[in-house]
Amino acid sequence: MTQDGGKGNKGQDKKAQQYGVTPQSVDFNDWYNEVVKKADLADNSPVAGAMVVKPYGSALWENIVRWLDDRFKATGHESLIFPTLIPMNFIAREADHVEGFAPELFTVTKIGTEELAEPYVMRPTSETIIGHMWAGWLNSYRDLPFLHYQWGSVFRAELRTKAFLRTSEFYWHEGHTAHADEAEARAEVRMILDLYHEFCRDILALPVVRGEKSASERFAGAVSTYSIEGMMRDGKALQSGTSHYLGQAFSRAFDVKFQTREQKEDYAHTTSWAISSRIIGALIMTHGDDAGLMMPPNIAPIQVVIVPVGRKDNFDEMVAEGERLAAQLTQNGVRVKVDRRDGVTNGFKYNDWELKGVPVRIELGPRDLEAGVVVVKNRNSDEKETLERDLAVGGMVERLEGIQAWLLKRATDFMLENTVTVDSYDDFKAAIEDGKWVRAFHCGDPESERQIKEDTKATVRNVPLDDAEFFAEREEGGVCFHTGKPAAYGKRILFGRQY
Amino acid sequence: MTQDGGKGNKGQDKKAQQYGVTPQSVDFNDWYNEVVKKADLADNSPVAGAMVVKPYGSALWENIVRWLDDRFKATGHESLIFPTLIPMNFIAREADHVEGFAPELFTVTKIGTEELAEPYVMRPTSETIIGHMWAGWLNSYRDLPFLHYQWGSVFRAELRTKAFLRTSEFYWHEGHTAHADEAEARAEVRMILDLYHEFCRDILALPVVRGEKSASERFAGAVSTYSIEGMMRDGKALQSGTSHYLGQAFSRAFDVKFQTREQKEDYAHTTSWAISSRIIGALIMTHGDDAGLMMPPNIAPIQVVIVPVGRKDNFDEMVAEGERLAAQLTQNGVRVKVDRRDGVTNGFKYNDWELKGVPVRIELGPRDLEAGVVVVKNRNSDEKETLERDLAVGGMVERLEGIQAWLLKRATDFMLENTVTVDSYDDFKAAIEDGKWVRAFHCGDPESERQIKEDTKATVRNVPLDDAEFFAEREEGGVCFHTGKPAAYGKRILFGRQY
Repeated sequence: MTQDGGKGNKGQDKKAQQYGVTPQSVDFNDWYNEVVKKADLADNSPVAGAMVVKPYGSALWENIVRWLDDRFKATGHESLIFPTLIPMNFIAREADHVEGFAPELFTVTKIGTEELAEPYVMRPTSETIIGHMWAGWLNSYRDLPFLHYQWGSVFRAELRTKAFLRTSEFYWHEGHTAHADEAEARAEVRMILDLYHEFCRDILALPVVRGEKSASERFAGAVSTYSIEGMMRDGKALQSGTSHYLGQAFSRAFDVKFQTREQKEDYAHTTSWAISSRIIGALIMTHGDDAGLMMPPNIAPIQVVIVPVGRKDNFDEMVAEGERLAAQLTQNGVRVKVDRRDGVTNGFKYNDWELKGVPVRIELGPRDLEAGVVVVKNRNSDEKETLERDLAVGGMVERLEGIQAWLLKRATDFMLENTVTVDSYDDFKAAIEDGKWVRAFHCGDPESERQIKEDTKATVRNVPLDDAEFFAEREEGGVCFHTGKPAAYGKRILFGRQY
Repeated sequence: MTQDGGKGNKGQDKKAQQYGVTPQSVDFNDWYNEVVKKADLADNSPVAGAMVVKPYGSALWENIVRWLDDRFKATGHESLIFPTLIPMNFIAREADHVEGFAPELFTVTKIGTEELAEPYVMRPTSETIIGHMWAGWLNSYRDLPFLHYQWGSVFRAELRTKAFLRTSEFYWHEGHTAHADEAEARAEVRMILDLYHEFCRDILALPVVRGEKSASERFAGAVSTYSIEGMMRDGKALQSGTSHYLGQAFSRAFDVKFQTREQKEDYAHTTSWAISSRIIGALIMTHGDDAGLMMPPNIAPIQVVIVPVGRKDNFDEMVAEGERLAAQLTQNGVRVKVDRRDGVTNGFKYNDWELKGVPVRIELGPRDLEAGVVVVKNRNSDEKETLERDLAVGGMVERLEGIQAWLLKRATDFMLENTVTVDSYDDFKAAIEDGKWVRAFHCGDPESERQIKEDTKATVRNVPLDDAEFFAEREEGGVCFHTGKPAAYGKRILFGRQY
């Protein structure tokens, strides 16, 4: 985002063809950046590290927000809105927390012409200010649990930024809950992790591995951090959501205490959890192909695009017919758009919608109209089908379900095919170098993790849970591939390079 | 918000009774602050001038957002997300704009440990950065119009703050559109003003006056500013939404130009418009009474509350029965809550829901259950009705519509009764002192406005449009009540004290 999205922006697509993007196999990074721009998802901004989310990206994010928000409410959570600013001294109150975030903080030192004695920071996350407020709201165990969340921006300075994946300002929900005991808090952490897993699998068609982070990869201040990890098409991992058990650390720092059922005083056990706008990066990098994006139908802003292919003298008539067809599909709950643009060729339109990843395209020409048929093309296939119009309309929901399932299967197969099991450091290094994920026994020593990272750029992604959908098998008695010490965790754990 | 909402918060309601709030007639300001707190709408925060919006307030805001957002989309607008920060030099580029906002700016001077050569400000509004981005996106008249909006926070330092009404951080949508000519831009400005008017009248039950601001009350940088003005129950006005025609000023400052149909170069004509979280303040202060809030059913987070009134031995049974009743109402599209709390008295619950302004309360006791009846009470009435259960369920939608209409009528009558027509400065001063709005002829001289404000704290609210719902009559030949000069505007205009 350091390059400005303003005037300097026009006509710069060197490697890409007129309509297309650099193929993934040629340069995955260029492919990504071009897709983000050309699909109208986001643009660079004049603010260091921040992006502008454009209409198509914003519509996608709104769908994500709506699904999650409905589920948060359905599971008893309440939304609140906390200030964007946090007094600097709050951040400092939890020792690990400040160490983790200090280098990334945006600091407000002035309001109007007045220099502030006590600066504010733009929130990198809100545990501290929420803890402070909770202290005022909490009296008795009867008040608990607090099941809170908010949607908003957070701010963490990034040197090397990449739209959606790593931006200085990003968008998320942050869940914050407080409980009377550890068991209830840990159940919440797990429930949310499972909710995230379900969302990724069923809505975004992203297979993800549920697991616990190693100590050195924990959230700043957490007792336990759980994550869902997905594999991108270049083999790198992307941490797609996190759920933290914070113990009583923040409660002690902010005096979040209550009278227990037994009339004693205790500190609340708290949790926090988040999925951010980087999930859009995961979606792009999991489902794309050389032609651009592939939007999972269950989240796609546009599920079906209708392209009227008339000539000048009957274009308006074809558009009107397209609108009628769209109305039929809309009645069936399908999200449809009619491409009314004139002044661009049909070829341009086709490429444009392929690039934007719209799951189904319907072409509607005058001869098709006469014959009572339409031409249907799925984004994940090269074939065009000519179908009776009613059949095309009637089968659309099922067709979209088919594409959704196809995307999940493709991504799952890819992840499984690109994960290897190793028992030596040489094999480990070769696999990582080859862009794979690795399953291996590890001793759990943070110093060993540090060394591995230095050598290979690979880190522990997570320790898959016993009931994680993937890589969950328990295997006792293993030996660390790196140190030769006895394995921790009672199972092979997951390593990979990450975004 | 300068007082902290944290630990200092507990047990401070001096004037109010155990359950209630200070009556409006005793102290409107205390009434407002107590209602905001006790109804769980918002709390003070440890950040100067910022509030915390609590669950009930957040649910209300979400309903507001959803209605407006649907309408923006239905009228062809697209959402985007722009950065929260703006380079300081952007603000300075439009002369009136910087003069208007400079004293209120939150300035970021540091990221991590690095002092910034060019500081950022937290956006007070986004015309400048959006103009900058548009310059990069706009080439030809074919690209226009841009019909954009975003939801988010903005930041304007406030010395004396008041929840929802005046906070340093507040929540809003800001619409920003760009057009090829003035007529289209002005039509947009008007369309949005009418949309706001409809929203206030039909959803929030707020009668508002559509009109144009006088020159001295315009938005910083605008050619024309239109507003909707509502009357609070203390007679003060609250500007509840604004829609601005910005001419080409921001386009020139940010180089937002395009090739016209005639192959010439021109600057876009831009607009901006907003309704913010202060509309919640308007809602509270328009519809409340001595017992607390009165939520208009069309926006109420909870339209019907069911209070099971069992004793210890049958309370669970009554709650279960309440859930069955709730399910029936939910099926009819009614938003219902069952009050499952034990450990508080029925009287406490009744007062609590009255204070929160829930439009209808249903009481459900064991004897009612046997008799097949329920007790129903409307928030806007002192009477309880005993109704056959099916009748109560079947008539609920109509009942809610009746309450909605009652609220609009009460507010409209109040506004009309408390607006007086005057022709002399003495009458003007007396009316303003008496908490009225005034309709009067005015010469249009900004210096006269300034003097009137200094004398009376009253300002021009707006010049009602010819088709404003209220106070629209044209009357030629009037004489200014203040200067004796010929009247401008061709009609009486609206003065009042304001929030």
